[in-house]
Amino acid sequence: MSEAQGPNIAEWQAQQQHQEAASEKSGFGLGHSDSVATIVDGMKWMFNFHEGAIAAYNNVFEGLVSGSSLVTLFGKSGNMFGIKFLESLAEYFSGGGGEDMPSEGMGMDYGDEGHHPDDYPHASNEMAHSADGLHDMHDAVKKVSVLGSTGSIGKKTVDLLLKRKEEYQVEALSANSNFALLAQQANLLNAKYAAISDERFYKDLKEDLLGTNVKVEVGAPGLANVASLHVDLSVIAIVGIAGLEPVIKVIESGTKVIALANKESIVCGGKLLLKKAKERSVQIIPIDSEHNAIFQVLQNDDKCVEKIILTASGGPFLNYSLEQLRNITVNQALSHPTWKMGKKISVDSATMMNKALEIIEAHHLFKISPNRIEAVVHPESIVHGVVVYQDGFSFAVLAETDMEISIAYALSWPERSTLNYKLDLTKQKKLTFQEPDHKCFSSLKLSMEVLNSSSPHTNSIVLNAANEIAVNEFLKSRIGFLEVVEVVKSTIENFDKYSDINSLSDIISVDFESRIIANKIIENKGIRSAE
Amino acid sequence: MSEAQGPNIAEWQAQQQHQEAASEKSGFGLGHSDSVATIVDGMKWMFNFHEGAIAAYNNVFEGLVSGSSLVTLFGKSGNMFGIKFLESLAEYFSGGGGEDMPSEGMGMDYGDEGHHPDDYPHASNEMAHSADGLHDMHDAVKKVSVLGSTGSIGKKTVDLLLKRKEEYQVEALSANSNFALLAQQANLLNAKYAAISDERFYKDLKEDLLGTNVKVEVGAPGLANVASLHVDLSVIAIVGIAGLEPVIKVIESGTKVIALANKESIVCGGKLLLKKAKERSVQIIPIDSEHNAIFQVLQNDDKCVEKIILTASGGPFLNYSLEQLRNITVNQALSHPTWKMGKKISVDSATMMNKALEIIEAHHLFKISPNRIEAVVHPESIVHGVVVYQDGFSFAVLAETDMEISIAYALSWPERSTLNYKLDLTKQKKLTFQEPDHKCFSSLKLSMEVLNSSSPHTNSIVLNAANEIAVNEFLKSRIGFLEVVEVVKSTIENFDKYSDINSLSDIISVDFESRIIANKIIENKGIRSAE
Repeated sequence: MSEAQGPNIAEWQAQQQHQEAASEKSGFGLGHSDSVATIVDGMKWMFNFHEGAIAAYNNVFEGLVSGSSLVTLFGKSGNMFGIKFLESLAEYFSGGGGEDMPSEGMGMDYGDEGHHPDDYPHASNEMAHSADGLHDMHDAVKKVSVLGSTGSIGKKTVDLLLKRKEEYQVEALSANSNFALLAQQANLLNAKYAAISDERFYKDLKEDLLGTNVKVEVGAPGLANVASLHVDLSVIAIVGIAGLEPVIKVIESGTKVIALANKESIVCGGKLLLKKAKERSVQIIPIDSEHNAIFQVLQNDDKCVEKIILTASGGPFLNYSLEQLRNITVNQALSHPTWKMGKKISVDSATMMNKALEIIEAHHLFKISPNRIEAVVHPESIVHGVVVYQDGFSFAVLAETDMEISIAYALSWPERSTLNYKLDLTKQKKLTFQEPDHKCFSSLKLSMEVLNSSSPHTNSIVLNAANEIAVNEFLKSRIGFLEVVEVVKSTIENFDKYSDINSLSDIISVDFESRIIANKIIENKGIRSAE
Repeated sequence: MSEAQGPNIAEWQAQQQHQEAASEKSGFGLGHSDSVATIVDGMKWMFNFHEGAIAAYNNVFEGLVSGSSLVTLFGKSGNMFGIKFLESLAEYFSGGGGEDMPSEGMGMDYGDEGHHPDDYPHASNEMAHSADGLHDMHDAVKKVSVLGSTGSIGKKTVDLLLKRKEEYQVEALSANSNFALLAQQANLLNAKYAAISDERFYKDLKEDLLGTNVKVEVGAPGLANVASLHVDLSVIAIVGIAGLEPVIKVIESGTKVIALANKESIVCGGKLLLKKAKERSVQIIPIDSEHNAIFQVLQNDDKCVEKIILTASGGPFLNYSLEQLRNITVNQALSHPTWKMGKKISVDSATMMNKALEIIEAHHLFKISPNRIEAVVHPESIVHGVVVYQDGFSFAVLAETDMEISIAYALSWPERSTLNYKLDLTKQKKLTFQEPDHKCFSSLKLSMEVLNSSSPHTNSIVLNAANEIAVNEFLKSRIGFLEVVEVVKSTIENFDKYSDINSLSDIISVDFESRIIANKIIENKGIRSAE
């Protein structure tokens, strides 16, 4: 565990050159001002000819997102030719822990109620041992790692692991910057490693873990190191596309089961990632409740399946008119009726882009054609997924709306553990289902169009990246609610750097371009100036 | 295929002697008039000492049910010491085809819309071959038999087989008396054997099948013969306890899959039958929609199951008060809101005794303790069964309310075929669930009491037999709606001939006694005289 394992720069370079050649043919036809494109081209040039010597990718983006000019952009980045480039770039793409990504526009935010140092006052060893009859011992102790342990999924995972200390041995935890919670978790779980992605908190983490046996890893290389540990089960709860590279590292590590709460790695990794997982016999258990439900039924067997249905709560604006949607505020969008979630996913749920991403995710995870995937609005959020068979039978998977249940399933798979959730059907007033309003929520059809396009993989990456940018802008009240999906659509329409997606760097490249285009679209709309 | 294979008379005798010994100790304590008991004792005596020389069991019962005295009873039976006894007795217990049992009180009546000779005008060979894309070929052609092919389940089975002639080779069909439909079915399906239980229709069947290759079997021995054929799959759609012996014959035949639409054979056969099936590695696929649903989820694996839920439509009298129920007429009871069924099962659904029997059936089929079986009222009848796991997840199995779907599943198992049923969740207004009203529908608790009693097997047989008698009396407007379950309860309370159930004859004996007690209770209530 010594060498840094950031993105493969040689690959990246080759990709840039390939793309440049392509762009020479096709032009960089945004049809708008090319100022941002020029920045990017300039960056690429520098990147190609001055290895390891350009501004940090995330700082560049922070500049782009905040609408900085070329000058302030590079000014802000500080060490344009500094030695930190490689690590910074790697750190952005490898990501870290959950709720506190430095650049909101780049990471999904599952939840922002940070744990305090005394969040686990009950979790003495005695408590964990005597606690409950909630756990039952199955086989041997499972070695686990939790990447992104301080996000909302990560925290619930840690909670479960604390209740089941006899069943799991925690090899590693990782977080982006919430060192205090990470230290506390690592201590309580007797983790062997704790990795903090944001180097600024390295010392703090070290200090908090003084006198313990927990080894501290730091930065993107540190995250790569803990992702590369061979464990029985790796829970990946990192948010945003930042989760993609750690997933790949885990697949390569020899770890055979991944509990995956990062839909972007499937949306953007697509066939590439699934192929790699298959080659190495890695079982991916989705934690997302809808996919978790479908997975439970299919268990890798899609025989005789007519279609799958992903349910959607419909979000807070179900049955709103287009006119009503136009003036939705951020606070309105963040009040989800059934699930308690972070900001990014709450907005995604409100625009139904979350379901759009899930359709793409389901397409890859279950190897099912897009026209066999349906989204149905089910406001009660009790049925999470339905598998419809060709003979007229449907299997619906029901559970209460708490992610703990899906996480517990993934932790215990292929067994089931015992939890205290007892769904009482007779206490449900009713279960209802309705077709989505595609006029008001056009994101669903957009994802279908993406999957049915001639470049589904590239367009999926574009959709995801543009959506992250657009949601971030909405959260800052810089664009309207309906404009979120419009920006995504425009970005897809304006994206024209198509080439085969064969590597992580190809994905990163498309993601990068997409963010630039999305930002440019927002800028050109003049929405910012209206602030 | 030559020897008659009726019930084992030596076993029966041994059982009678055992019971007599027991009754000497305990008395024949009905606590009422012993007149009926005396008849039975007399019969037993004759039976023991004059083998094969007493009146037909079903004629005896017809007498009992219609309230005949000792004299008319034996008078009606005609050939008290005739040579037909063995066959008659065997015929009653082996049963025949579905909808037209001669004694209504003894058989379940799944449906009474008899097919006419031109019921299959479309079923030319060409039609069957070209029809649809509805079938898909899986493995080799399956050899099947359908016992009880003219009842409502039997007819639906035949319909399916006609659509899938390339997939199935029909070895045998059986019916009780509907020779015309049986002949037509056998002809269309190129069946090798057609067995008619009621000997009166032997000639008619022979005539109808003149010039075909279909071999005709007759009477109880004929049914036993076709049940003993070794096939890949035997569909048993015989109604009432009459199905029990054929099921046993099929298990003994080497046939490995039984599609079972006869809940009485499980309720009354209980552990005995399931043990025999297990010993011979016979897979029983229940056709009953609720059990079919649960079976689909469990597939013989009950690991981590918290409980199973059998849904009940609630019948036509859901939310009625006790006062309203008191004056229910036969016609009201026969109007089921969601399922189109025969008379017996419609009444059972109205009293919820159907669900009570299903609880007992589920207990045996899925080896699950009674307190882990729940009945929940679900008026829409879209969810048929739910498996609740210990970790908070539930699998609900949904399908439209047509038995064809369950039958098709059983025919195709372990594969699934393609049918044209497309359940559209968004077209369902809502799915609702409520606890049964145990005050108005006390049958459910009764079945739990039976299963939790010290003699669950015996009491299950008593419950089933008494219910058949009581429903028959209700259908003749001789007892009130609420009295159906009261008669069953009283019969269980008054039954006292407990002994181990170790054989078919033990079961038959308890069934026999129960019917007598039930009839006696009805008689003593003076309800008949009120006609």
